[in-house]
Amino acid sequence: MNRYLPKIAITMGDPAGVGPEVCLHLLMHTPTLERCVPIIFGDAAVLRRVAECCGMALAAQVIAHAEWDQAWDQISRPTIVDFATAESHLIRPGEVSEITGRASYRFIKASIEAAKTARVDAVTTGPIHKRALNAAGIHYPGHTEIFAAETASDRSCMMLTCDDITCSFVTTHVGYRDVPDLLTIDRVLEVIEISHETMAHLRGRSPKIVVCALNPHAGEDGLFGDREEERIIAPAIALARRNGIDVEGPLPPDTAFLPARRLATDCFVCMYHDQGHIPLKALAFDVAVNVTLGLPIIRTSVDHGTALDIAWQGKAEPTSMFEAVKLAARLVESRRLVANCHS
Amino acid sequence: MNRYLPKIAITMGDPAGVGPEVCLHLLMHTPTLERCVPIIFGDAAVLRRVAECCGMALAAQVIAHAEWDQAWDQISRPTIVDFATAESHLIRPGEVSEITGRASYRFIKASIEAAKTARVDAVTTGPIHKRALNAAGIHYPGHTEIFAAETASDRSCMMLTCDDITCSFVTTHVGYRDVPDLLTIDRVLEVIEISHETMAHLRGRSPKIVVCALNPHAGEDGLFGDREEERIIAPAIALARRNGIDVEGPLPPDTAFLPARRLATDCFVCMYHDQGHIPLKALAFDVAVNVTLGLPIIRTSVDHGTALDIAWQGKAEPTSMFEAVKLAARLVESRRLVANCHS
Repeated sequence: MNRYLPKIAITMGDPAGVGPEVCLHLLMHTPTLERCVPIIFGDAAVLRRVAECCGMALAAQVIAHAEWDQAWDQISRPTIVDFATAESHLIRPGEVSEITGRASYRFIKASIEAAKTARVDAVTTGPIHKRALNAAGIHYPGHTEIFAAETASDRSCMMLTCDDITCSFVTTHVGYRDVPDLLTIDRVLEVIEISHETMAHLRGRSPKIVVCALNPHAGEDGLFGDREEERIIAPAIALARRNGIDVEGPLPPDTAFLPARRLATDCFVCMYHDQGHIPLKALAFDVAVNVTLGLPIIRTSVDHGTALDIAWQGKAEPTSMFEAVKLAARLVESRRLVANCHS
Repeated sequence: MNRYLPKIAITMGDPAGVGPEVCLHLLMHTPTLERCVPIIFGDAAVLRRVAECCGMALAAQVIAHAEWDQAWDQISRPTIVDFATAESHLIRPGEVSEITGRASYRFIKASIEAAKTARVDAVTTGPIHKRALNAAGIHYPGHTEIFAAETASDRSCMMLTCDDITCSFVTTHVGYRDVPDLLTIDRVLEVIEISHETMAHLRGRSPKIVVCALNPHAGEDGLFGDREEERIIAPAIALARRNGIDVEGPLPPDTAFLPARRLATDCFVCMYHDQGHIPLKALAFDVAVNVTLGLPIIRTSVDHGTALDIAWQGKAEPTSMFEAVKLAARLVESRRLVANCHS
């Protein structure tokens, strides 16, 4: 009997970006195909044009989105679910628009629905462009927020992970100035807890969590900042410890990521977007994976953007997509294991 | 005739930290001694105790601070200027106090005076502890601010540099929340200009400067933040370009430090402390050097703290001190070259 392969819905991302090209790479990537059945939620006409531009094959069966409701449970090999974007012939590489924004949003919405109804086991998302979404009248700051809203999750957070370093985020797509007022004991505790749960699944053991401070030098005993460390971060850490979580901090953000500490830490809880994105991208660009934690469904994503300047040119680096799909498959497996243990 | 060796005043830092030990290492480091005459501004009794604890030699002549006024121009070999701290026998490794704070401040004040009066060519500072300074009633947030005040410099900034990456800072030792209100077009322009001048000296060519944004994704066309990029950072860059400076930005802070861009960039202008300290320490801890730019005197510093937990134990890593003194010597040479060209 064949091993069950998780079905992963993969959204193509903005048609004008590098998303279509990395999807084409994925469909030919044997190590990925040995671990899951990829189902691209996208546009077949765009994928064919990109394949031609990049001298690549389109190695999958195509079904119309209208057929999905009937066809989903017979899918056992790489498939494209074709949303046949209206006016897709107007789409040009590198030019995002209302058309590309609306199309990317349709792929996402349908993939979430497929995961909620258990027609797929997980979702991996390709890169979207916020200007395109906005042009289409869709005003989410990013994927994470769309997934949280569509699954009514009030307890989620973003995590970026690769072999070298994993970071989860108390705040993400907000202005620099807005961060301090979004920090609360409850929110910091929540992100510590969600990070602990996920890393415990992934590592199969109790993980070590490190929490970064907000201020330089962790505020240095109140010399800098408004004692956010003492008022908010330290109490959250104390509560998490009382719940049995192995967590340390708040640490000065610049020394938190030193090589020795990176080796000993399973996840860094970061207070703001760039606190974790800067070291992660400096150390491991193009291989990290973005995961939304705390959702009722599994969702991973590439950690790069649409890279409009190199779209449809055969220059896109697909490693982050491979890793994102691989991690989605691993998360499916670890949830199954946990479910089996509890049944 | 012997080549002139720059005289570098080296402050011992807080006596209770790792500063004394890295000074002892320096006095025995042949490559450093071939490039400069190190003059430690510190405490001979403490240095002797640390030498004993760490099984090291004290490889320098000792003169009392009272002799300095007469002796300075005859110094041609490694020397300790002994401030003979009152109650220095009470000093314990790892225990900072009013005594250690007052002592560290005396070393700094005297080294600045020595540089201002051209008795030394540059100053390199060992690590101090702000709690100790505060206990002694001295309320500067860091060395940079002491040097700026003591030399009446209203146009200075901090730079961290190593082989891999160089960052200069628009703001440094302030709380996270205070950063946005400290950003002005004039200040950003000033830091671009000072960074350009220094890197032009060090590289001997026109350097490439990159300026980081404040907000994640550089604000993404105003989606996040208060358009600090458009209102403040971009106009400063435009003015710098008009003055002939090769400068790019504002770039999204997380992708600014990607490996390819690091290779092509001589200096990153950062908006806040951790924006530059995080990638620098993640990539190159213990080897970076801290330089205060825009002063009438040359000042470099180690980029690590007092490391009280390992003080006087023979565990301190002296590379950053070696590099700091080497850079001070190089800056002395490059100023001499410029002075000779202009004379």
